[in-house]
Amino acid sequence: MTLEKAQQLDAADALAFARERFRLPEEAIYLDGNSLGALPVAALDALSDTASNQWGTDLIASWNKHGWIDWPTRIAARLAPIVGAKPSELLIADSTSVCLFKVVAAAVRARPGRKTILTQKRNFPTDLYVVQGLADMLGLTVKAVEPDAIVASIDSDTAVITLTHVDYRSAAFYDMAAVNDAARAAGALVVWDLSHSAGAIEIDLHAARSELAIGCGYKYLNGGPGAPAFLYVAERMQEKLRSPLQGWMGHAEPFAFVDEYRAADGILKFLTGTPSILAIAALEAGLATFDGIAMRDLAAKSRSLSELFIAEVEARCGSEVQLASPRDPVQRGSHVVFAHPEGYAVMQALIARGVVGDFRAPDLMRFGFAPLYNSHAEMVRAAQILADVLANREWDQPRFKQRAKVT
Amino acid sequence: MTLEKAQQLDAADALAFARERFRLPEEAIYLDGNSLGALPVAALDALSDTASNQWGTDLIASWNKHGWIDWPTRIAARLAPIVGAKPSELLIADSTSVCLFKVVAAAVRARPGRKTILTQKRNFPTDLYVVQGLADMLGLTVKAVEPDAIVASIDSDTAVITLTHVDYRSAAFYDMAAVNDAARAAGALVVWDLSHSAGAIEIDLHAARSELAIGCGYKYLNGGPGAPAFLYVAERMQEKLRSPLQGWMGHAEPFAFVDEYRAADGILKFLTGTPSILAIAALEAGLATFDGIAMRDLAAKSRSLSELFIAEVEARCGSEVQLASPRDPVQRGSHVVFAHPEGYAVMQALIARGVVGDFRAPDLMRFGFAPLYNSHAEMVRAAQILADVLANREWDQPRFKQRAKVT
Repeated sequence: MTLEKAQQLDAADALAFARERFRLPEEAIYLDGNSLGALPVAALDALSDTASNQWGTDLIASWNKHGWIDWPTRIAARLAPIVGAKPSELLIADSTSVCLFKVVAAAVRARPGRKTILTQKRNFPTDLYVVQGLADMLGLTVKAVEPDAIVASIDSDTAVITLTHVDYRSAAFYDMAAVNDAARAAGALVVWDLSHSAGAIEIDLHAARSELAIGCGYKYLNGGPGAPAFLYVAERMQEKLRSPLQGWMGHAEPFAFVDEYRAADGILKFLTGTPSILAIAALEAGLATFDGIAMRDLAAKSRSLSELFIAEVEARCGSEVQLASPRDPVQRGSHVVFAHPEGYAVMQALIARGVVGDFRAPDLMRFGFAPLYNSHAEMVRAAQILADVLANREWDQPRFKQRAKVT
Repeated sequence: MTLEKAQQLDAADALAFARERFRLPEEAIYLDGNSLGALPVAALDALSDTASNQWGTDLIASWNKHGWIDWPTRIAARLAPIVGAKPSELLIADSTSVCLFKVVAAAVRARPGRKTILTQKRNFPTDLYVVQGLADMLGLTVKAVEPDAIVASIDSDTAVITLTHVDYRSAAFYDMAAVNDAARAAGALVVWDLSHSAGAIEIDLHAARSELAIGCGYKYLNGGPGAPAFLYVAERMQEKLRSPLQGWMGHAEPFAFVDEYRAADGILKFLTGTPSILAIAALEAGLATFDGIAMRDLAAKSRSLSELFIAEVEARCGSEVQLASPRDPVQRGSHVVFAHPEGYAVMQALIARGVVGDFRAPDLMRFGFAPLYNSHAEMVRAAQILADVLANREWDQPRFKQRAKVT
């Protein structure tokens, strides 16, 4: 595959127009949108307008005048086509970790008598830490098993199963419907973490009969660093669940200022405190980058990019790197990992050459493909630069081996 | 007191220069900084720089290059002189409600066997809702009593006492040291909510021997709508407490990506998920509006403003409004409330005239004084406009009586 061939694919790419929705640094090939999505051009105006024209000019009146009070649901509605849910089932709130705590805690309480939270070994760390903390507080047990043992491990003591849909390292993903059905048959609830899949691959929460999910706003959804997270509670579950993090924004009448909590109807009961309006404004710009784009087309482009990248890397780098993601593109999300014993240093050398991916311990170089802004030509160039870095041992320098605080 | 006399006070005001740190709408008299602080001029550049030059240009590298990973502690350090604590005891995180949940839950677990959370009737609603939710989950009891019954209600079953330092309605405040000492003598812990006092009055958490506190970033601290909150854990308590909301950002080695949670040392263990960097950038600009200003001077100006406002209102409006705050300025925070049977409509009419306060059920008109940007002249003009609105019954119109969604 030559660069020319890749450029032909780009010329025929029906999503190519979306790149203009982002402001990306020139020269760099940014393959880390799975960790921090790129800046949407519209985010700058959204922040400026919200700060200057709303907060600065209308001050407290903005809660009514600009409808700030409705932003957590209004902006969440933009997620509906991205995850395959109804707008009324989605909410923007808190961080991913706090959303997970809320939803898992609510689910556990809906299954009294059951004492086990089932999850996956090597799940994204915060997902494990959140359920460990919850279990510790409530006297429950966290059972973490290998991915292929999940379904067989569900039993009559399982209250909740919580899984990351697309693995943050390998990009392998679960058959959502199969896990949901097995859980339902056993009377357990499933909470999906969509952080590494929302905005990256096709998700249809309804078709998969999903009941509960949460996800991250700052990866493929381009909401900005530390963007608010989202949560999903299927309509049929909303009546049955109570959030343990009861706050005034989830009250039926927050401005009645009464002493007794009474949960709001529907998804709103899962709000807790006052959300950051500035952060939501940026997230809205991130979600707007998906306007008019079918998730099917997005997923197809993701596969096209990753297939090309894998082929180019393997052709140019030989056995020096090992693919550590599923080879079948329909079995992986929108990133791939290659293992190399000096993966950290190699990635730093790549970054120095303008190819930005990241590293995940112990030895994985991770490359994410954001179909809204990555191109096929970038795949070829990135693979070529990786081949150069390896051939010339560019990574073999102390400055590339010293670990930064954040990897 | 004439307007001229007020203008003389303003001319002699050592804090007058601080008003230029804010962008306030012309013509309006903004007396609601206790609900949403005004826009700091520097917030616009901070947001633009963080979004455009950091997120947009350096992307994921910003976590190291711009030190984002340290912002929750670096920016919290700016609170140290405002609340009388060490920088290492402060953290920016989550919302006020979520911070309260974390700290109260951690405190409850440090007092095993004790089953009561003691609080005040008519506390700020979210404070009550948070502890009701926690108590419900853990099988505890919430005991809410009148303010003057708090100390006498502390007993051997009291795990935690949680109080809002300055009452959001009356502005009356607690003797922090007295409650702390009574709690300590009984083996209980106190969690202070500083939302209505931080940045408004003198607070010395150390002098009062306080162990735990949380507070709001978007009121007197000017951090923007829904700004992240803060929490305080005294150094001597940090080892003893565990956050129930365990997330990767509070892990000792978040980027080791290990399966088992191990709490970070010190205050960092109280972080949970990834914080909104954009929201923290705005909050930093808010906290910077206090640079070089002694809290003693700030509190003195607050008293000067509120004394003048009360005197002017009472002189001009007679008995049509009733002061519902403590008359002694050393016994109240930086806002005052006046009761009027048609308080909601009167406040809407005032807002239509450019005097922006707010309303709290059932009949309270609330006026907040932000010593950084309010002036004595504004006090006189606002009182005059209130007198006009009442004398002319300007409030007696349907448009002023219809309740907005957010009050």
